[in-house]
Amino acid sequence: MLSLGVDIGGTKILAGAVSESGEIIAEHRVPSPAQDPQEMVTAVANLIQTVIREVGEVTSIGVAAAGFINLDGSKVLYAPNLNWRNEPLQQKISERIGRDVVVENDANAAGWAEFRFGAAREFNSMAMLTLGTGVGGAVVDGGKLMRGGFGIAGELGHITVVRDGLPCGCGRLGCVEQYASGTALLRSANELADSTDPLGARLRQLREQAGELSGHQAYQAVLEKDPGALGLVELACEHLACAMGSMVAVLDPEVFVIGGGLSELGEALLQPLRRELAKQLPANGFRPQAQVVRAQFSNQAGVIGAAELARETAGKL
Amino acid sequence: MLSLGVDIGGTKILAGAVSESGEIIAEHRVPSPAQDPQEMVTAVANLIQTVIREVGEVTSIGVAAAGFINLDGSKVLYAPNLNWRNEPLQQKISERIGRDVVVENDANAAGWAEFRFGAAREFNSMAMLTLGTGVGGAVVDGGKLMRGGFGIAGELGHITVVRDGLPCGCGRLGCVEQYASGTALLRSANELADSTDPLGARLRQLREQAGELSGHQAYQAVLEKDPGALGLVELACEHLACAMGSMVAVLDPEVFVIGGGLSELGEALLQPLRRELAKQLPANGFRPQAQVVRAQFSNQAGVIGAAELARETAGKL
Repeated sequence: MLSLGVDIGGTKILAGAVSESGEIIAEHRVPSPAQDPQEMVTAVANLIQTVIREVGEVTSIGVAAAGFINLDGSKVLYAPNLNWRNEPLQQKISERIGRDVVVENDANAAGWAEFRFGAAREFNSMAMLTLGTGVGGAVVDGGKLMRGGFGIAGELGHITVVRDGLPCGCGRLGCVEQYASGTALLRSANELADSTDPLGARLRQLREQAGELSGHQAYQAVLEKDPGALGLVELACEHLACAMGSMVAVLDPEVFVIGGGLSELGEALLQPLRRELAKQLPANGFRPQAQVVRAQFSNQAGVIGAAELARETAGKL
Repeated sequence: MLSLGVDIGGTKILAGAVSESGEIIAEHRVPSPAQDPQEMVTAVANLIQTVIREVGEVTSIGVAAAGFINLDGSKVLYAPNLNWRNEPLQQKISERIGRDVVVENDANAAGWAEFRFGAAREFNSMAMLTLGTGVGGAVVDGGKLMRGGFGIAGELGHITVVRDGLPCGCGRLGCVEQYASGTALLRSANELADSTDPLGARLRQLREQAGELSGHQAYQAVLEKDPGALGLVELACEHLACAMGSMVAVLDPEVFVIGGGLSELGEALLQPLRRELAKQLPANGFRPQAQVVRAQFSNQAGVIGAAELARETAGKL
């Protein structure tokens, strides 16, 4: 039987019908009316109905959204990019479509997809880091998604790695998100290109050719093994490994799953990351070591995970 | 019915029979033969038999030890203070006394005592910090003790708070244990007393009177509101709050329970700690806030928690 997953992002809403083995059978997307909570509900409800019309029937419906979701999934406490504060999203969507929905944080949903069907499917505990615009996270311990006391656990991007460091949108200073997200890497690439440092030569050249330095150009420089770009990846990995060392102390995961835009660098990211993590392990040599692997799903993880979480919730009722 | 708990420490072994409501009925202790694994097993077995002789019968036996315990409790992977490496402690004790025992990390056992019967009994999720010789930790999420992938989760003292900071016994740099343990506070008190800083005047005086500056003198100076000693507590709280801010991001606990020797300072510690934590909360104002409370049990927490964990494990068989 199929379950339906929806992933509400800042730029688009993605929905799909997902099989019991985690395959997306039918997929639809629409632009995200991010600034209007009322239009958002309409857009999500319409998209759900579009998918159901295509596949006939679904057993359950899960919705993933980028924000703090409270413990019972009834409210979006805070979603800076979606203009929600204490929004009863579950009830609003449920009323509109006339059936139950399960609401989950998008990074948790993506993590659950990797845990059930993807890169962590052989493991019982996991920390997932999504390196994109920010650094998202999800934690699984003993086969269960860690939700925290208020539903907001696993915000792994907000571990401090530089005391009194760069200001973060969360209000803290020196969060790892400011040093190891896609945004952070692009910012440091632009800073290097702006400088007169000879290490910035290739990045300057790529910026002139393209008119701007986007992720695409930065990735190209890394894959060309440009020393300037590689140095920036190294530095991001040092910061990320510091946060991961603290995660090992707190969470002791069997595996780290690395997803998000930056993970498209593949081994060019994972190799320096594994090397730096080895320097940051507490009691290294006296404990089993966590593996570091690349996420299997990319943009579809949120849809797959939301659908699967909804299926499992429905199975428990 | 009574369950029996044993807490193996570096200086003493404590054992007690514990009621279903967490009260210790009979208690015995012996010095810890910390450097001899074989004598340790004998001492623990004898102590267990002493308690059983006194109370008649126990339903289950739990043993807490300061070390990395693997996920099924069968082995002590590493215990720097107890001279164990890959020690099959569970089997050795079990064979000696002729019945099953459950082995758990001592900080986890202490945390479980606070969660089930003590300061966190009204909550469903908790992070406990034990500020003593080091900084120990235990995490409860959704009513369950977090164990991690290899059994070594909740080592909260090894979160980095100062990048490239003081070297830690774990091999990392700048762990919060180096800044906010009892040992760390005493070290900084001695450094202040060694200096010519006028703020060290009272600490110098107390050291001269007592011959050395022990925890007792440092606590006295804090409780007298000596500005030098208060400044050191403030600084320890700033560091601890930085780690707790990262814990809020990762674990999202409803409550922080503060135990260990330093917690005997009571509100003289908790007030500055709460104030500093408020500055370190990710997305402060957009999420429910964790409370910060003092542990209820002191030296007996390990015994109570080990006994209760064993009782619950026996109940599941």
